[in-house]
Amino acid sequence: MVDQLIRKIKEMDNATVVGLDPRLNFVPEYIKESSYEKYGKTLKGAADAFYNFNKEIIDNVYDLIPAVKPQVAMYEQFGVDGLKAYIDTIDYAKEKGLIVIGDIKRSDIASTALAYSNGHIGRVEVEEEAFEVYKEDFITLNPYLGYDSIEPYIGNCNEYDKGLFVLVKTSNPNSGEIQDLVVEGEKIYERVGKLVAGWGEKSMGELGYSRVGAVVGATYPKQSTELRKIMPKTFFLVPGYGAQGATAEDLAGCFNKDGLGAIVNSSRGIIAAYTKEAYRNKFKDEEFGKAAREAVISMRDDLNRVR
Amino acid sequence: MVDQLIRKIKEMDNATVVGLDPRLNFVPEYIKESSYEKYGKTLKGAADAFYNFNKEIIDNVYDLIPAVKPQVAMYEQFGVDGLKAYIDTIDYAKEKGLIVIGDIKRSDIASTALAYSNGHIGRVEVEEEAFEVYKEDFITLNPYLGYDSIEPYIGNCNEYDKGLFVLVKTSNPNSGEIQDLVVEGEKIYERVGKLVAGWGEKSMGELGYSRVGAVVGATYPKQSTELRKIMPKTFFLVPGYGAQGATAEDLAGCFNKDGLGAIVNSSRGIIAAYTKEAYRNKFKDEEFGKAAREAVISMRDDLNRVR
Repeated sequence: MVDQLIRKIKEMDNATVVGLDPRLNFVPEYIKESSYEKYGKTLKGAADAFYNFNKEIIDNVYDLIPAVKPQVAMYEQFGVDGLKAYIDTIDYAKEKGLIVIGDIKRSDIASTALAYSNGHIGRVEVEEEAFEVYKEDFITLNPYLGYDSIEPYIGNCNEYDKGLFVLVKTSNPNSGEIQDLVVEGEKIYERVGKLVAGWGEKSMGELGYSRVGAVVGATYPKQSTELRKIMPKTFFLVPGYGAQGATAEDLAGCFNKDGLGAIVNSSRGIIAAYTKEAYRNKFKDEEFGKAAREAVISMRDDLNRVR
Repeated sequence: MVDQLIRKIKEMDNATVVGLDPRLNFVPEYIKESSYEKYGKTLKGAADAFYNFNKEIIDNVYDLIPAVKPQVAMYEQFGVDGLKAYIDTIDYAKEKGLIVIGDIKRSDIASTALAYSNGHIGRVEVEEEAFEVYKEDFITLNPYLGYDSIEPYIGNCNEYDKGLFVLVKTSNPNSGEIQDLVVEGEKIYERVGKLVAGWGEKSMGELGYSRVGAVVGATYPKQSTELRKIMPKTFFLVPGYGAQGATAEDLAGCFNKDGLGAIVNSSRGIIAAYTKEAYRNKFKDEEFGKAAREAVISMRDDLNRVR
């Protein structure tokens, strides 16, 4: 799947991932009204509005981008109806040929990790039947528990050609509290970076990158540039561009010399573009998909300046 | 909620938490057959079997224990039907007066963390309506992203009297890979322990313990004893007893002098007791709940020797 991701990035000439993290205040009134009419102002109504919102976004950007990244928390909060909208969103994105990165950041061990792994990127067996449940192509994971919390995913990565992005250096203000602590002269995130690179050696794609990638925040340019050198064969999923404050220049160091090695996420900056100053006067609420398309093109060109 | 937990531990004279982490090979055939008859050998059939299994376990132990800990991964793997079984299990346990610890180990930041927080321990708003979705009393969290990944939960802990257990030193074999690294003379788990204790100061209960607890594995007795000293006001959720190899002696250091400060989880050792040598000849498959009850009593007495 990392090979497919690379091919799609080249084909689209675009390293942008659109984060499908809706919030009700991003969803135009006309979509919410239609869902509330069907299901009331309920969890189901909200989940339905998210799905319809996502469909419109996907319809307007699928021919420009390699991948989308739904954030499961936004759906999980609405219970079973939310999870259905998450799964339906994944199905719809895949129908449109998009690679799907499930931003789930799970962290557990042994049989528990295997349950997550089978559900999200493998197969779940019920007696002699095997089910594909969530169908993400990649998922994100948290490394705090060590290798036995990652290994149960690597088998499914190899068997079903799926991929992982393991948190290394995250984009948030307090990420340094643990990640920047210094151990024997190196930072924790460097140590974790080396571990992740090592774990990834057991799951290499054909185009020079591992199926085991890393999450590296764009908001820490010095650190991401160091990490790029430490882990040259690890693909980076880079959050923090746009709404969190990072510019294209900040994340230039995330790319290898081949212009590959990183995909950059933007959520609000794209899906809520129609609410921003720059687009508000140009697009009606009903045209939020078109605003998202324009924001994707602008981000693509911005990234292409530096990679 | 930490106060209620303490009152229940005293009332039951029991620091045991029963982990509701079913697997299909633990569930007696007669239960599975009945669910498959209704829903087929499907995700829904499997989820229904889990729920019926859990009900029978709860019916047989609710008057002996303070809390249950469903592991969401086991349900999440079955998709929306699984998540429904998770929610139904929580509802049923609460009807029976049990405290519910949702073992979700989520890790995310800002608005994403808030979505998890609202869904699991707070309220989710859909316009002017507010919904309680998962209704756990406590949830588990991963600290790798730092305080801004924990803070969005503390507001709900204070507002709705809920609680957290943050991973500090986990019970698995590779937990030391990151957690045991040494920073300025102290281990990462000690540093994280101090951070967790600090975060918890903003959310103290009335009986001397914080609503922000810690996960500390029973399989590392030396480390858990150190942590008990570093964080005297932090309640510990202790995995690793029984199936993972730790004995009551190993976790004696997790308790304070008052015999409080820790609850100890056992999953397989209780819910699958009927499959073990010691119980197999005594109980029929249909009596798996009675076997679980006997295993709970035996664990309670074993823990009470050391706390």
